[in-house]
Amino acid sequence: MKKLNVAIVGCGFMGRTHSNAYCKIGNFFDVPYEIVRKTICDFNEEKARAHAARWGFESVETDWRRLLDREDIDIVDICLPNNMHAEAAIALAKAGKMIICEKPLAMNGPEGLKMVKAVEKAGVPNLVSYNYRRMPAVTLAKKLIEEGRLGRIFHYRAKFLQDWTISRDLPQGGDALWRLDVKVAGSGVTGDLLAHCIDTALWLNGSMDKVNAMTETFIKERKHTLTGKVEKVGIDDACAFLARFSNGSLATFESTRYARGHKALYTFEINGEHASIAWDLHDSHRLQYFEHRDPGALRGWRSIHVTDGDHPYMKNWWVPGLTIGYEHSFVHQLYDFLQGAASGKPTGPTFRDALETQYVCDAVLKSARTSRWEKVAKVR
Amino acid sequence: MKKLNVAIVGCGFMGRTHSNAYCKIGNFFDVPYEIVRKTICDFNEEKARAHAARWGFESVETDWRRLLDREDIDIVDICLPNNMHAEAAIALAKAGKMIICEKPLAMNGPEGLKMVKAVEKAGVPNLVSYNYRRMPAVTLAKKLIEEGRLGRIFHYRAKFLQDWTISRDLPQGGDALWRLDVKVAGSGVTGDLLAHCIDTALWLNGSMDKVNAMTETFIKERKHTLTGKVEKVGIDDACAFLARFSNGSLATFESTRYARGHKALYTFEINGEHASIAWDLHDSHRLQYFEHRDPGALRGWRSIHVTDGDHPYMKNWWVPGLTIGYEHSFVHQLYDFLQGAASGKPTGPTFRDALETQYVCDAVLKSARTSRWEKVAKVR
Amino acid sequence: MKKLNVAIVGCGFMGRTHSNAYCKIGNFFDVPYEIVRKTICDFNEEKARAHAARWGFESVETDWRRLLDREDIDIVDICLPNNMHAEAAIALAKAGKMIICEKPLAMNGPEGLKMVKAVEKAGVPNLVSYNYRRMPAVTLAKKLIEEGRLGRIFHYRAKFLQDWTISRDLPQGGDALWRLDVKVAGSGVTGDLLAHCIDTALWLNGSMDKVNAMTETFIKERKHTLTGKVEKVGIDDACAFLARFSNGSLATFESTRYARGHKALYTFEINGEHASIAWDLHDSHRLQYFEHRDPGALRGWRSIHVTDGDHPYMKNWWVPGLTIGYEHSFVHQLYDFLQGAASGKPTGPTFRDALETQYVCDAVLKSARTSRWEKVAKVR
Amino acid sequence: MKKLNVAIVGCGFMGRTHSNAYCKIGNFFDVPYEIVRKTICDFNEEKARAHAARWGFESVETDWRRLLDREDIDIVDICLPNNMHAEAAIALAKAGKMIICEKPLAMNGPEGLKMVKAVEKAGVPNLVSYNYRRMPAVTLAKKLIEEGRLGRIFHYRAKFLQDWTISRDLPQGGDALWRLDVKVAGSGVTGDLLAHCIDTALWLNGSMDKVNAMTETFIKERKHTLTGKVEKVGIDDACAFLARFSNGSLATFESTRYARGHKALYTFEINGEHASIAWDLHDSHRLQYFEHRDPGALRGWRSIHVTDGDHPYMKNWWVPGLTIGYEHSFVHQLYDFLQGAASGKPTGPTFRDALETQYVCDAVLKSARTSRWEKVAKVR
Repeated sequence: MKKLNVAIVGCGFMGRTHSNAYCKIGNFFDVPYEIVRKTICDFNEEKARAHAARWGFESVETDWRRLLDREDIDIVDICLPNNMHAEAAIALAKAGKMIICEKPLAMNGPEGLKMVKAVEKAGVPNLVSYNYRRMPAVTLAKKLIEEGRLGRIFHYRAKFLQDWTISRDLPQGGDALWRLDVKVAGSGVTGDLLAHCIDTALWLNGSMDKVNAMTETFIKERKHTLTGKVEKVGIDDACAFLARFSNGSLATFESTRYARGHKALYTFEINGEHASIAWDLHDSHRLQYFEHRDPGALRGWRSIHVTDGDHPYMKNWWVPGLTIGYEHSFVHQLYDFLQGAASGKPTGPTFRDALETQYVCDAVLKSARTSRWEKVAKVR
Repeated sequence: MKKLNVAIVGCGFMGRTHSNAYCKIGNFFDVPYEIVRKTICDFNEEKARAHAARWGFESVETDWRRLLDREDIDIVDICLPNNMHAEAAIALAKAGKMIICEKPLAMNGPEGLKMVKAVEKAGVPNLVSYNYRRMPAVTLAKKLIEEGRLGRIFHYRAKFLQDWTISRDLPQGGDALWRLDVKVAGSGVTGDLLAHCIDTALWLNGSMDKVNAMTETFIKERKHTLTGKVEKVGIDDACAFLARFSNGSLATFESTRYARGHKALYTFEINGEHASIAWDLHDSHRLQYFEHRDPGALRGWRSIHVTDGDHPYMKNWWVPGLTIGYEHSFVHQLYDFLQGAASGKPTGPTFRDALETQYVCDAVLKSARTSRWEKVAKVR
Repeated sequence: MKKLNVAIVGCGFMGRTHSNAYCKIGNFFDVPYEIVRKTICDFNEEKARAHAARWGFESVETDWRRLLDREDIDIVDICLPNNMHAEAAIALAKAGKMIICEKPLAMNGPEGLKMVKAVEKAGVPNLVSYNYRRMPAVTLAKKLIEEGRLGRIFHYRAKFLQDWTISRDLPQGGDALWRLDVKVAGSGVTGDLLAHCIDTALWLNGSMDKVNAMTETFIKERKHTLTGKVEKVGIDDACAFLARFSNGSLATFESTRYARGHKALYTFEINGEHASIAWDLHDSHRLQYFEHRDPGALRGWRSIHVTDGDHPYMKNWWVPGLTIGYEHSFVHQLYDFLQGAASGKPTGPTFRDALETQYVCDAVLKSARTSRWEKVAKVR
Repeated sequence: MKKLNVAIVGCGFMGRTHSNAYCKIGNFFDVPYEIVRKTICDFNEEKARAHAARWGFESVETDWRRLLDREDIDIVDICLPNNMHAEAAIALAKAGKMIICEKPLAMNGPEGLKMVKAVEKAGVPNLVSYNYRRMPAVTLAKKLIEEGRLGRIFHYRAKFLQDWTISRDLPQGGDALWRLDVKVAGSGVTGDLLAHCIDTALWLNGSMDKVNAMTETFIKERKHTLTGKVEKVGIDDACAFLARFSNGSLATFESTRYARGHKALYTFEINGEHASIAWDLHDSHRLQYFEHRDPGALRGWRSIHVTDGDHPYMKNWWVPGLTIGYEHSFVHQLYDFLQGAASGKPTGPTFRDALETQYVCDAVLKSARTSRWEKVAKVR
């Protein structure tokens, strides 16, 4: 079997989730490659070495540019902060590497467009890691929609609620806290959390025409870890927007890190003429399904425990009733990516798919500034 | 329309629920009688007068024996403590009154049998107030079973959990606390709570062959309100039993007043070959239904919000989505009773039906004493 | 005790809920008046007579103007369609009647303002029937907020989802379907459903500064029952809006009659610095409460079964664990109104309070037309 | 770091779960050994080779007896069917191997006692794989009990419901179906499912004095895969029992493979004087907790999402809100075992601990035969 030599760039939180996927995939899925965890790359050498030891990488690098010329690297998996995605992805694609890139694709649409052009010009398999598509319940939702079970769609609503930044004492910047530093993250909850909601929505419900948003930064200043000074907070702590999809449905989206009691409550619901679907990341192994064509007196929301062999991905894990968790979505994503790479039929979300999410994010942030409805740029 | 003159005997908690039913029924249901709230009877005259004023009874009595000769009374509704049911019901039936009697029917089976004979000899319509049969979700469960949706039944399980007697300072006896006085109540949770579970079970799942029980009295002595002295507690604080139904299914039943966190958690579940049903009094407007014949990947417990016009009794109330509560089950029960009385087709649970519950209770309490399986006496 | 002679105008769905409240209140609450159900008024005499018979009204009228001179009427309870509220309320207030008026107050803000002026000039007790304030769980939410348990508020979100108008065959206008006729209803879900959400929100979270809305009419034409012709549908089938409250919190609101699987799913959630609260009309007897000050490892959303004696209104009903339903909120509302009338301390929502809701609705509908943020007019 | 050479015996379903634990542990936990996956052993060589390839074992064996003399094996992990546990464990312990053995410990108590004696005489670290103790929510329950939060315990109830053997066409014996063959499994749901419930119960609630059980075999004959003939079914399809714990609490236990709608619904609830706890394997990342000492009006069952860093084991995984699944309990178990082995402080359930569960199972099965209460033998 063909070897696939992997390099992961960045060994923070996302680096761990990706490393885990490369480790586990062969135990549970039949993949068309022999995966070799070749190199882990992080500008912090100590962290890179520790990561290599823990996850079984053969070598370490401290600069992703060193990967450009390494012929023994087939795929580069970019788990860097958002502001470093573009440069790395463009150069590495040009060097012929397959690219998996953490989400969001880019700092903004124009930057994302360059990345799309780069990977497409290079002709390399590419994927952006919107992993929630591969939670089995979400994949099942997609399947039900494709089977036409919902009929005409009237409504889509999603939210992603957290509560971890309510304290004023939390600094911005540095390590895990780069998500609060607008120069590194590009935006706050919009790019971090809503991007997930948008990716799922575009996948399940098609393209979006226009949006109307508001954002808020509840805590205006925070100490910056790197400078040691109290600095203005540039990110959006919360963002809510109205949207209209091309299929005529109406949508509401909301995200915040100030919703006390919610850790990572990503929920979506879609209401169709014949059926409705709802999902909740906090109980990610369940899909709620309402079927209007059931006999009248017997209609009710079905709580589907998505752990059966005929549910997406599940026959590869345990037995009915036994759950999997968050990390497994990355394994499924990797599996689909590898299948796509081997077969030549790309799996989504490709960079191009993710560009659409980026355009929605751009329109959302712009609308929050202009206080008007903003059109979503079309991906051509 | 024919007048129906009503007397209620006993104006404690259950007296209120019955008075409310007589008040409301005409507002929501078309009944075959003109209901007249003629007399409220309580040995405590002051309470009786207050009740009459509040609920619009024309007169008061302080001794139910006074009703025996009153030709202006058509129906007597007995809401007395358990130890007074038999004498009153037997005499009043003999006097030709229709009888509604609070549950449990009697202090024990032999006493209950006398009551059955009395009402049947008198030929008067009779009913025991196991009101939970008339919660719309429970009635819907009955309907689904009768339609054969469940197939062969394998399991039945029910429990009724409360937590209101955990404090040692709670006395026994007197007013609302007669339920803790074995001489008045006959038993503890068995007659008070399990009797409900048993009635529903017999209705939904047919007759029971044998039982195997344990009981416990966690707090052995309590002050008696009437004597002012600390006295031995004679009731069962908790009771659990195994059972075998005639249809071959296995059952577990449990009740206690020591389950912290539960106020009136009556739940039952029934597992059949093709479908299962579950209900919970704390969310009494929902029926949980699992249909194995749904397509594999779409199977899930349906949470049916039993508030539609095609759900039992519901077209008489509000509109879909708007709930009713506990008290409404008594209105439904009264409606069915009156329909039965007018049509000559008796509605259950009749005294005879309730005798079967009494026999199960007797077998349960006997088994707790003998530590053996005990057969349930057959109602002939 | 002073008699209070009541006239209800309109005996449709809301007429029933109000009649029921007048019937039941004395059974469960100690009220400062003797309630007399004097007159039921409906332009359809047959319906009025049937209502009088069923609910025990002494007489019927077919024109509310006849009540203006009747000195034996103390309070008029207006359950007419929206377009008839203003004329009736203004005239009847001028005639010195206490007024309870169904919601929404008026067809629009200016009309509402006239009504406010009329009742205030007349000096009569007045109330608008936003009954959900008096669901015990909602009243408990208010209490928790007033106790300061939530701290600074960051987010408010509410929705009211139904699915009863999805069929194209449903006509508009006439009887229960006047809610689909814009000339009678004034608006669609905004005045019918969102008005409830807004009233609760203003009560719990203070005033709203500005809103940004979108509306949709999914089915553009429907047969009109009264004309027999297919006519343009003028109401909003769905409406969603963003809002900013004066306390700095952000909000999202949504309502539709096209959310398959939801009958009357009114939900709200409020996220504060220290605690969060959520409620759902489909399980109206529960309040969800998250307390961040609980020990870290023991934090969780508490599902409070609002049926204890120390919960609002509940000591007047049954015992812990036994639920009440939709209709009871009208009894509570009436109780509070009568207390207010007797004590001279008005209870809300008064006409003035309800005007603020009207102003929000106006701003919402205007925003949907202008596609801009619109300020909410201030009630002075 | 000291190497720990591992051999797993049996590569069926449980072999996979254990192999996965050895693979993952080093990625997420700091363990006191370097784990070497030395040998996988299965009588079916082809399966063993496939397993070795998939899970990275250095070599294969087809007879566990070959491990007795292999000095390069430190620990043997027995994942054989129940009837082969004793011989292997006794011999391997005698040979000085550390032993992890799948549950239940043995075919019955006397056999289990021999195993306990063998491992204790050999002085080798030993553990029985009752993995559910290590679901973080269950471990949290243990912690709360040890902190004394529940006070005196009144009730324990557990059930383990499945529905996978309802079809008559399912054969017994062979491969995954050995669980239906009494000669291999020893019993049906009692040893397979109730053993888990009993282990947890003994851990959380102390020892059990006596039990009273019933069992049923709904389908009396099934084709045997190995013989090809229809044979009598010897296992219990369902088992329910009453129990009394030494601490005075009452318990009910039930298990079946005929509860339509349930895949692996292991639930338990424990009611104490001050607090109650409940858990459900289908939503294994949540612990339900009711605290009576909360202010009266604010009491409710808390749904604790057990995914925070201060919850057991969770700081080693992802971030708050992101769930883990079934397989992780085996990693935690292995971690604790290795800590115990390295420190000399054994972690439970040891063979001795598991013997107590065996004695309960024996008493349960005996009671089902004798129809009497049976005492549980004491582990000395």
